[in-house]
Amino acid sequence: MNYSELKDVQNLADSRGIDIQSVGVRDVEVPLIIQRKNDSEQVVSAKAKMSVSLPKEYRGTHMSRFIEILCEWGQKKLLGVDIEGCLLEMKKQLQAKRAKVRFEFKYFIEKQAPLSKLSSPMGYKCSFEGVLNEDDYKFILGVAVPVTTLCPCSKEISDYGAHNQRTIVKARISYNPEKIIWLEDLIELIEKCGSCPIYPLLKREDEKFVTEQAYNNPKFVEDILRDVICEIRKLPDVTWFEIDCEAHESIHNHSAWAHHEENTVPSIKK
Amino acid sequence: MNYSELKDVQNLADSRGIDIQSVGVRDVEVPLIIQRKNDSEQVVSAKAKMSVSLPKEYRGTHMSRFIEILCEWGQKKLLGVDIEGCLLEMKKQLQAKRAKVRFEFKYFIEKQAPLSKLSSPMGYKCSFEGVLNEDDYKFILGVAVPVTTLCPCSKEISDYGAHNQRTIVKARISYNPEKIIWLEDLIELIEKCGSCPIYPLLKREDEKFVTEQAYNNPKFVEDILRDVICEIRKLPDVTWFEIDCEAHESIHNHSAWAHHEENTVPSIKK
Amino acid sequence: MNYSELKDVQNLADSRGIDIQSVGVRDVEVPLIIQRKNDSEQVVSAKAKMSVSLPKEYRGTHMSRFIEILCEWGQKKLLGVDIEGCLLEMKKQLQAKRAKVRFEFKYFIEKQAPLSKLSSPMGYKCSFEGVLNEDDYKFILGVAVPVTTLCPCSKEISDYGAHNQRTIVKARISYNPEKIIWLEDLIELIEKCGSCPIYPLLKREDEKFVTEQAYNNPKFVEDILRDVICEIRKLPDVTWFEIDCEAHESIHNHSAWAHHEENTVPSIKK
Amino acid sequence: MNYSELKDVQNLADSRGIDIQSVGVRDVEVPLIIQRKNDSEQVVSAKAKMSVSLPKEYRGTHMSRFIEILCEWGQKKLLGVDIEGCLLEMKKQLQAKRAKVRFEFKYFIEKQAPLSKLSSPMGYKCSFEGVLNEDDYKFILGVAVPVTTLCPCSKEISDYGAHNQRTIVKARISYNPEKIIWLEDLIELIEKCGSCPIYPLLKREDEKFVTEQAYNNPKFVEDILRDVICEIRKLPDVTWFEIDCEAHESIHNHSAWAHHEENTVPSIKK
Repeated sequence: MNYSELKDVQNLADSRGIDIQSVGVRDVEVPLIIQRKNDSEQVVSAKAKMSVSLPKEYRGTHMSRFIEILCEWGQKKLLGVDIEGCLLEMKKQLQAKRAKVRFEFKYFIEKQAPLSKLSSPMGYKCSFEGVLNEDDYKFILGVAVPVTTLCPCSKEISDYGAHNQRTIVKARISYNPEKIIWLEDLIELIEKCGSCPIYPLLKREDEKFVTEQAYNNPKFVEDILRDVICEIRKLPDVTWFEIDCEAHESIHNHSAWAHHEENTVPSIKK
Repeated sequence: MNYSELKDVQNLADSRGIDIQSVGVRDVEVPLIIQRKNDSEQVVSAKAKMSVSLPKEYRGTHMSRFIEILCEWGQKKLLGVDIEGCLLEMKKQLQAKRAKVRFEFKYFIEKQAPLSKLSSPMGYKCSFEGVLNEDDYKFILGVAVPVTTLCPCSKEISDYGAHNQRTIVKARISYNPEKIIWLEDLIELIEKCGSCPIYPLLKREDEKFVTEQAYNNPKFVEDILRDVICEIRKLPDVTWFEIDCEAHESIHNHSAWAHHEENTVPSIKK
Repeated sequence: MNYSELKDVQNLADSRGIDIQSVGVRDVEVPLIIQRKNDSEQVVSAKAKMSVSLPKEYRGTHMSRFIEILCEWGQKKLLGVDIEGCLLEMKKQLQAKRAKVRFEFKYFIEKQAPLSKLSSPMGYKCSFEGVLNEDDYKFILGVAVPVTTLCPCSKEISDYGAHNQRTIVKARISYNPEKIIWLEDLIELIEKCGSCPIYPLLKREDEKFVTEQAYNNPKFVEDILRDVICEIRKLPDVTWFEIDCEAHESIHNHSAWAHHEENTVPSIKK
Repeated sequence: MNYSELKDVQNLADSRGIDIQSVGVRDVEVPLIIQRKNDSEQVVSAKAKMSVSLPKEYRGTHMSRFIEILCEWGQKKLLGVDIEGCLLEMKKQLQAKRAKVRFEFKYFIEKQAPLSKLSSPMGYKCSFEGVLNEDDYKFILGVAVPVTTLCPCSKEISDYGAHNQRTIVKARISYNPEKIIWLEDLIELIEKCGSCPIYPLLKREDEKFVTEQAYNNPKFVEDILRDVICEIRKLPDVTWFEIDCEAHESIHNHSAWAHHEENTVPSIKK
């Protein structure tokens, strides 16, 4: 049988007159090679979401081409520039005007306990996203950073103690894609805004240290959100950001949260 | 002790000069009473997400007031108008300019098998969302509807059979809040756009029927997306919608998906 | 067409000689009516898992009959006895030697804040399970109860403060099915074993109260596990139990946990 | 300050008289190096669950030691023997009689499309578990393998077509820890038992092939379960196994499933 004769149903004309904004694949598992700040590499296990726009003339897109492009790009070091290359290839192979891609993965950083200085890997949920429109490329770096928060109200009104909990700070930032902002630096920026950072490995002296540091540094989700905003506004190349801060309250079965999104105004940064 | 003397830390002045867009509670479990199309009621088990804006002058919002308002509003029938009442109360109690609320819940509808006519309850993931800005109220109705999709390409190129799978169609629609669009009607509209609806209970004759119906009615995710768009554009009161269609491919371990968002243009609807 | 002539493929003989232990349906959404301690009822949104054993002679079971039985039993009040009725019907309709069922649902209990006495509903993840063998019926009641835990080590070694967090205590208990143990009572028993219970709604005086109560009552996951074991051993009708206690550590990004399972020895209880 | 003077609260005596079966850490993220069948290695992103037994004399275990051991063992190649070394270290460091560990991770295998022979990585959810009692070590290998299943009943009774879906086959097997059973081989064994394997990348000729293969090879979840049982019984070193097969039905919103557990009888294998 000559397989080239198999009918290309996706390529059929469509009469409904609707340009579709996004069509593609989701939850594709793929190993990726990530370039680290210190010039080494890390292989991560990622989930990919890829899409292109589909003009009204065509019935469907060619889903297998996404996977072919992904296999090829998964071999390359991913940071900034290569995401754009992947998107250019998607636009070309799928004859599309717009392309989007998102990779989510756990990224490991060695973390030293504050006093014992014992080191252990900590996994952070991170993401790389790219959007390529007709002339415009945008890259978005994402992290989710757990920190300890200790409630200022609980500390103030109680004779002793204060409720505290694990709080997840998520940030997505877009910046000049010719520059690099390292995951390591963005994570550190956020950890400094909690009541105390979180560590995988703490010996007894470290536990004393983090307990007292959190007590000395009480913060609402609103405080952390504002502190992170202040720090990100100072980054010279950031053009847009979104912050979400969620405290898994130790005294409730629900979360307290705060969220903010901003196109950074150049004049503020000078 | 006189508890009214406990310091109100949230009310303290803040010097960072940042208006926060959203602060509130998330993942609050609450039973709600939903008004059904046929005038009866259904008690559902909902997750609530509530927030208000916080002006730069204040350090924090008063989280417990969200729960108090939720307890009161959970007793009322929720559809359209009452969401606005809940938001007005949030703005008032928390002295905010903007308020948002989202309820997610499983909603049960009795579904008859196509031939045996046996009836059984089917649970759909639904949501009510409301946004109240200074002068502007917006209500968004959401549903996630599973359907069967059968691949047109697989049917065309294969000598027999065709791969098919469970596909989730999510729709969020905003419309004139003085009108009512029933969950029952939006779900039915979407089910008609699949290769075949999905049922909890099918006897042998029903299974033959749905197998053949799906085979006679092959659809890509792009087809379903476009068909749902065409149907929603016909609804006279809809002002905005977003559709997401995701097929849990039976031949892959990833999904094929399509997404579209649109402010409906009045002239198209006439 | 005469649908009774459609071939019953499941009923075909099987030659592999393997008795299958469990075959059935899973993740079936169904509304259930639960009898409450105070004689009223609560409609919950449940997920059902049902199975029977399948003798080596048959190729398959008849999946649709599970749903038919579920629809019928969903209308009845479920506690103890009715689960057994449901299992007897499964055994009969599916000509099986053994049958199992599990329902998972959120169950709401009104909870009063400790000082303000304000009341609000709190949702607990609960389960009813039944196993019916040839002559032997077993019922298992399950709950997941969030509590606050405050770390005794952190309190002891720190000059001030102590890390605390949300901790989930899961219990599954089996007991004489002619007796009733109410969800309300099992939940209260567990809440008393934490450093402090968790509440949906706390005003400022309540927050002071729970902060200080937790600080005065530090507990490891091992402490809570042992305290719950001691309390459950005192319940006269319990024949088996399993406890899992997981603390979502506020100073780590992982959990501390403890687990124990026990056939209660009658002599211990006297 | 001399930190060695910080009180060891965990080491305090306990008077409740309860030996706890398992206490430890859960959801610890850690990178692991896995030895592959072809002698190369793969770095995976794992979640670890570790525990030891705790005698009634002690109030608590020393949680930080789990993380220290994990950091050390994460650097080693993990298959069979090393898990036992990790458990021996846990018993020693935590002075326990019993120790358990479980690692879950995505493992990637290159998979060739059936006709086009295009290759792409496919991620499988896998696990390594070890249990070390006083004199007895047990290793359990786990995989979750997606396959296509096509319904024999639907094919038989319908004039054309047949419903099919993604089905997840989970296997956990224990075997003589001096032997090696490779993930690659166990996954291949299971994939051969579906109506058709699943691939990340299929071109049009491949899609025709898998569609027709599934149609020619209809299977219930009961069929797959029995076929996998037959194959695993043939493996000479297996001493225990558990199989779970779950079909995400394309015509329902729930799953059909089958489960079986067995201590393999040596005489059957000869």
